[in-house]
Amino acid sequence: MKYCFGIDVGGTTIKCGLFTEDGELIGQWSVPTRIGGNGALIYDDVAAAVKQKIAEKNIREEDCIGVGMDMPGTVFGEGEFGFGNNIAIIGGFPAKEVASRLGGMKVVLANDANAAAFGEMWMGAGKNCRSMCMVTLGTGVGGGVIEAGKIIGGFHGAAGEIGHLCVEQQETEQCNCGGHGCMEFYASATGIVRVAKRMIQTGDPMIPVQEGKPCRYGDSPMAALGDALSAKDVCELAKAGDGLANRVLDFSMDRLGLALSYVTFIADPEVFVIGGGVAAAGEILFERVRKAIRKYTPLILDEGRAVVGAKLGSQAGIYGAAALVKLSTR
Amino acid sequence: MKYCFGIDVGGTTIKCGLFTEDGELIGQWSVPTRIGGNGALIYDDVAAAVKQKIAEKNIREEDCIGVGMDMPGTVFGEGEFGFGNNIAIIGGFPAKEVASRLGGMKVVLANDANAAAFGEMWMGAGKNCRSMCMVTLGTGVGGGVIEAGKIIGGFHGAAGEIGHLCVEQQETEQCNCGGHGCMEFYASATGIVRVAKRMIQTGDPMIPVQEGKPCRYGDSPMAALGDALSAKDVCELAKAGDGLANRVLDFSMDRLGLALSYVTFIADPEVFVIGGGVAAAGEILFERVRKAIRKYTPLILDEGRAVVGAKLGSQAGIYGAAALVKLSTR
Repeated sequence: MKYCFGIDVGGTTIKCGLFTEDGELIGQWSVPTRIGGNGALIYDDVAAAVKQKIAEKNIREEDCIGVGMDMPGTVFGEGEFGFGNNIAIIGGFPAKEVASRLGGMKVVLANDANAAAFGEMWMGAGKNCRSMCMVTLGTGVGGGVIEAGKIIGGFHGAAGEIGHLCVEQQETEQCNCGGHGCMEFYASATGIVRVAKRMIQTGDPMIPVQEGKPCRYGDSPMAALGDALSAKDVCELAKAGDGLANRVLDFSMDRLGLALSYVTFIADPEVFVIGGGVAAAGEILFERVRKAIRKYTPLILDEGRAVVGAKLGSQAGIYGAAALVKLSTR
Repeated sequence: MKYCFGIDVGGTTIKCGLFTEDGELIGQWSVPTRIGGNGALIYDDVAAAVKQKIAEKNIREEDCIGVGMDMPGTVFGEGEFGFGNNIAIIGGFPAKEVASRLGGMKVVLANDANAAAFGEMWMGAGKNCRSMCMVTLGTGVGGGVIEAGKIIGGFHGAAGEIGHLCVEQQETEQCNCGGHGCMEFYASATGIVRVAKRMIQTGDPMIPVQEGKPCRYGDSPMAALGDALSAKDVCELAKAGDGLANRVLDFSMDRLGLALSYVTFIADPEVFVIGGGVAAAGEILFERVRKAIRKYTPLILDEGRAVVGAKLGSQAGIYGAAALVKLSTR
């Protein structure tokens, strides 16, 4: 039996997984992320975690395929890291750093969103597909596009940045990317709440909320939740039949579907896998997304695009990182 | 010396090229496209053209790498053809058909727009790049996206259909794809003329022209050309300093750049290569496209995206088809 490691480096925790080469997760643990030395502490801890597990499990050198690692930030072609705000790293070659601490073991690196996509394709909702687009609905919207079994990385490492596809050129408020009308501005967990608050006050998803202005739908159950209103609340109220909450999801998911129509006409993946906390709401979101993709891609004679929920949850990263090293030929 | 053939099947002509494996075009000819037998006449003629040239040039069997062929229509994963309106073919496996007529010679098939992209990357404006997006401005807007040296084909064969990316959800007139607000509706040769006519009559690129309604800018030099107005005229007038013509290009090229920002955030190619007749206008278009891409992708810290003119003109198809068979490992 051969083994591989999947390491998912986040801003607070480094998640670690030991896998068989067939994708079975046989050990999972985590260590806190220590910030410092432009990543040196992270590289030390990743190498130490791998060494310790190898010793503990008595894994022979020839049975260890290597270490797959993902980090939050841009990764360029040959494993060069760009900028990772949450982990205070600028530049460098993280895979080489870890490999040198592991006596030259094979180590490969990917961006975290792309790794999650890869994980879902290896052992999750995209299993047995050759092309897939992963959409993670969180504070923002992360993306990863896989074509012919490989992650599309892109020249600037910007491929898969589907959250910043511009879907509303008329938007007056700025997205934190510096642009206007980005898809995540309406369809992320934060975005759904933004649209809900606009709808409550103005009845129009495109008119920004103004402090102190009277609310047109102040009697909405969404309004009753005040600042505590979450995307989950909106989805639950919509499921319970609340009209305004349904209109919020109509708008937000139409804009998500519009962005996914762009993915369709550019990369045309077999399946869209929707993950992140909000995705737990399930069909109330997915059915709207399918309808919107169909609306914006009339050229494609298809009953309806495959839009499904993610399966691996917060483990997608370690699965994907492990898949990376297993499937990499480098 | 080894050789390969590049065959570009169009609605009226089959263009044929004989290439050295290094990409030198050493013979070029064409035969008329004969419609019939669900493609049988085309397959016969392609095979005959190849056989005749092999005999004429005394090419030994072991020196012929094979035949690359492109056709106007959808091509699925394993060389299955979808629907080609201009050549009256539905379904089938054209490469297999031609191969069987050539004693089992290696024959590979691609969509025509994708082949043109491949040609420009092999020997044209994208030479030495590994990723590229080809944009052909004609009656419509064709596209082909190449990632890591391979054409992104897509699950439905719809990858690279950038002309139908929706850039104006508010559009009231329908595109011939059945959708609304497609990029090509504003940025193709036809689209530029449409925007010009709207501007002449209404001063607004989004308000459709109505028969008999008075023209707001009836004194424009564009208006003087009447129904003969072409995209080339608009570009020439813009170069000569005409204000309204410049506003037409501002709008049309902004929408093209918006669509290319989608390509950037999904596939992030190294260079955009603009071809088709209109592209001959050059920088007056390209500078606007660069500006628009920059505007819609503020996340990417780049001086400006590489947007260049195509180099191979109407030969891109035969180059790309030949490159396909040369670079294919099948």
